Amino acid sequence: MARIVMKFGGTSMAGIERIRIVAARLKREWEAGNEVAVVVSAMAGETDRLVNFCREASALYDRAEYDVVVASGEQVTSGLLAIALQAIGVPARSWLGWQLPVRTDDAHASARIGGIDTDALNASLAAGNVAVIPGFQGMTDAGRVTTLGRGGSDTSAVAVAAAMKADRCDIYTDVDGVYTTDPRIVPRARKLRRVTYEEMLELASVGAKVLQTRSVGLAMKENVRVQVLSSFVDATDDPEPGTLIVGEEEIDDVERQLITGIAHDKNEAKVTLTAVPDRPGAVGSIFDPLAEANINVDMIVQNIAHEAGSTDVTFTVPNAELARALDVLEKGKERIGYGALRHDTRVAKVTIVGVGMRSHAGVAATMFKTLGERGINIQAITTSEIKVSVLIEEDYTELAVRVLHTAYGLDAPEAITA
Amino acid sequence: MARIVMKFGGTSMAGIERIRIVAARLKREWEAGNEVAVVVSAMAGETDRLVNFCREASALYDRAEYDVVVASGEQVTSGLLAIALQAIGVPARSWLGWQLPVRTDDAHASARIGGIDTDALNASLAAGNVAVIPGFQGMTDAGRVTTLGRGGSDTSAVAVAAAMKADRCDIYTDVDGVYTTDPRIVPRARKLRRVTYEEMLELASVGAKVLQTRSVGLAMKENVRVQVLSSFVDATDDPEPGTLIVGEEEIDDVERQLITGIAHDKNEAKVTLTAVPDRPGAVGSIFDPLAEANINVDMIVQNIAHEAGSTDVTFTVPNAELARALDVLEKGKERIGYGALRHDTRVAKVTIVGVGMRSHAGVAATMFKTLGERGINIQAITTSEIKVSVLIEEDYTELAVRVLHTAYGLDAPEAITA
Repeated sequence: MARIVMKFGGTSMAGIERIRIVAARLKREWEAGNEVAVVVSAMAGETDRLVNFCREASALYDRAEYDVVVASGEQVTSGLLAIALQAIGVPARSWLGWQLPVRTDDAHASARIGGIDTDALNASLAAGNVAVIPGFQGMTDAGRVTTLGRGGSDTSAVAVAAAMKADRCDIYTDVDGVYTTDPRIVPRARKLRRVTYEEMLELASVGAKVLQTRSVGLAMKENVRVQVLSSFVDATDDPEPGTLIVGEEEIDDVERQLITGIAHDKNEAKVTLTAVPDRPGAVGSIFDPLAEANINVDMIVQNIAHEAGSTDVTFTVPNAELARALDVLEKGKERIGYGALRHDTRVAKVTIVGVGMRSHAGVAATMFKTLGERGINIQAITTSEIKVSVLIEEDYTELAVRVLHTAYGLDAPEAITA
Repeated sequence: MARIVMKFGGTSMAGIERIRIVAARLKREWEAGNEVAVVVSAMAGETDRLVNFCREASALYDRAEYDVVVASGEQVTSGLLAIALQAIGVPARSWLGWQLPVRTDDAHASARIGGIDTDALNASLAAGNVAVIPGFQGMTDAGRVTTLGRGGSDTSAVAVAAAMKADRCDIYTDVDGVYTTDPRIVPRARKLRRVTYEEMLELASVGAKVLQTRSVGLAMKENVRVQVLSSFVDATDDPEPGTLIVGEEEIDDVERQLITGIAHDKNEAKVTLTAVPDRPGAVGSIFDPLAEANINVDMIVQNIAHEAGSTDVTFTVPNAELARALDVLEKGKERIGYGALRHDTRVAKVTIVGVGMRSHAGVAATMFKTLGERGINIQAITTSEIKVSVLIEEDYTELAVRVLHTAYGLDAPEAITA
C-alpha cells in the first residue's frame, strides 16, 4: 500500500467524458490498495472565463472577491469527479480549500500555502475513500477564500503530498515528462527519467514550462517525490514512465550525466549603456531605479570601454519589460551620465544545467569552445553552481542548442520518431 | 435608517451589465443611510448548466457532491456584485454560506435553514459595508455544502431578513407583484398592494408562481415583511410599488376584500375508481399505496354509486404523477376490488382565496352559483378556512376565472394596458 497524490490539469477536466477517464485511472490505483488523493484544476477555459468577468466588473477588482469568483472553477470539477468516481463504485468525497482547510497567507490572487490540516483527510483516506481536492484554492486565517496564482494547482498537489506524507505526487500534464532539451529543436532529445529539484528549478525558470516553478521549490523544501506524466493515456493503459523529480541523493552516479539538460529562452532583450563613468555608485544609479520599477534584470556584464575612465554596461530584461526599462533609463540619463542607450531584442539565452558540474571542472570551457567552433559569438555569460547561461544572437539559438546537446553526450542512440 | 434585505434573481444577474444595474440600485439604498444586505441568485441558465453536468456524470449523483457543484453559481455572482459595488464607491464584501454560516440540516439538494449566525454580518453592516450573500446555499453542522432546492434564494433572503431583524425584505423578480388573478386571462386584474402570508401560500401553491412557497411559510413564521418588486427598472428609477406580503393584522378592514385572488391550475389529472366496495378500509386500500409511492393526492370525492353497496371514488393527482398513480392502482385492483379505473387530464382546478371568507358566509355559494349560471359543471370541491377550490372541465378555465373575478368585485375600474 502506498499513499499517492495525483494531479490532473484543465485539459483532463474539460467535460464529463474526460473526467470519467480520470476517474477510471484513479480507480486502478485505488483498487491496488493505495490511499489516493487527487488534486484537480478547473475545466480548461473556465478560469479565463471567470477572470474576464472580474475584469469586466472592474479593472481595479478587489483581489479577495476575485478569489471568491475564480475559486469556483475547481469547486465544480471536484464535485463532478467525486460523482464520477462514485458512479464506478469508488467511494469518494470532495474537500474544498476551506474544508480541509488549506491555510494560506492573505496575499489574495497569489497566496502562499502555510499548511494543510490532514486529520479529517487521513481518517477519510484510511476508511478507503478517495479524496478529491480542488487545486489553486485555500483559506486565510480570517476565513476568506484565496487562490494561489495561475498554475497554482501544481503547488496545491505538492503541498497536499507533503502534508499527507505521500509516497509520491504524480502530476498529469500535457507533456509526458522533462526532456534533455526541446524535442522540436533536437529530435534526438531524451526524456529524463530523473532530474533533481535544483535542476528542474533552473530548467523551469529558463523556459521548460512543465510545472509551476513554485511547486518545484516546495517539493524540494518538503522533499516530495514528484512525477510528471502524460495525461493523454487511455484509462485502461498504464502511462509511460514520466520524469521523476527527486533529491540529488536519489540519483545514481551511474546514470548521472555531467549536463542534465539544455534550455533556451528567446524572451529576453539586451540593453547596453555606453560610456558610463567608471566611478563608485555609477552601476547602482543604473539598477536601483530599475528595481524600483519592478523590472527583472538578469545577465549583467561590465566592460572596460575604449575611452579612459568609462565603461560599457550590458544587461538583459524580459521583452515584456523592455519598454518600461528604456523609459526609466532615458529619464535617468543625466543622473547616470551615460553616452548612448542601445537595445537589441534579437538575442537568446541558452543555458546548460546539471548538478554534475559541481564536481567537474571544464564544463563551461566546453560550452564556450563548442559555440566558438561554430562561429557563435557570446555576448554575455552568467553562471551558478549548477548552470551556465550565455547570451547569443537569436538566429543561432537552435544551432547552439543542437551542438551543445551533442557535445555533452545527450543525444539519444536513435532519433525519437512519432 | 432601516435594515433592508434585497434579493435579485438570475435574470438580474445575467451578465456584468445587469449586475452593474443592481449595484446602482443598491447604492441608492446605501446612500440613503440604510444597512443593506443583498441576496443573489446565479446567472440565469448557470444552475441548469451545473445540474446537467451532475446528471451527465451520473444519473444517481450524490446529492452532497451535487450541492458542491451547483452552489458555485451563486458564489460567482456574489463576488462579481461585490466587485461592481466597490467600483462605484460602495464598500462591500461577499459572505458565502459557510462563512456566515447559514446553518442547514443535511437534506442535500433540498436542505432547510436552521439558523444564520449574524455577529460578523452585523459588525460589517454597522461599519457601513453592503453584505453580498449568495442565495440557495448553506452548510451542515458537519461543515458540508448544502443547497435549498430550486427557487431557494427567495428562502435565503427571507431567512437572512429574519436573522438580521430587517425592516423589510425586497424581492426583485420577473413579475412586478401579485395580481388578483393571471392578467393574461383577465386584463382587468389588479395588482394587490397587500396580501397576507396565508393567502400568498394558497395562491402560490395553486399556480401563481411568484415566490418559492417555502419562503412564504418562513416569512409567516418569522414575521418578515416581504415585498415583491419588478427587477425591470432602471438603476435610477424608483421601482413601482410592488406587493407587500404581511400578517393579517396589517391589512385594514377598509381595503380588505372578501376574496383576494383567483388562481387556476391545469396541471392536475382526475382519476376515478368505479364500484369500490362500500365497506370500512376500502378507501384506505386505495390511498395507502399511493402515499407509499410518494404521489400527491389532492381533491378527493366519494359518491354513492348506482349499484347498492358500492361507491365511486374520484381524486386528482399532478399530471406528472398520473402514470405512476395508474400503475399503482392497476397492480392493486384485486386487493381494492374496484370496477373500472378511469382518468381524465382535461380538467382544471380553480381556486378563490381570501382571509375575508373566515368572517363571511355564502362565499362558496356565490362561486357555485356563478359557475352554474354559465353552465360550468363542478366535478369536485375542496375547501379550507381561506379558500375554495373546484375541479372543472379544462376548456372552461379562462371563462370561470373571468366570471368569478367579476362576481367578487375584483375587476379594476379600467383595463390595464401596456
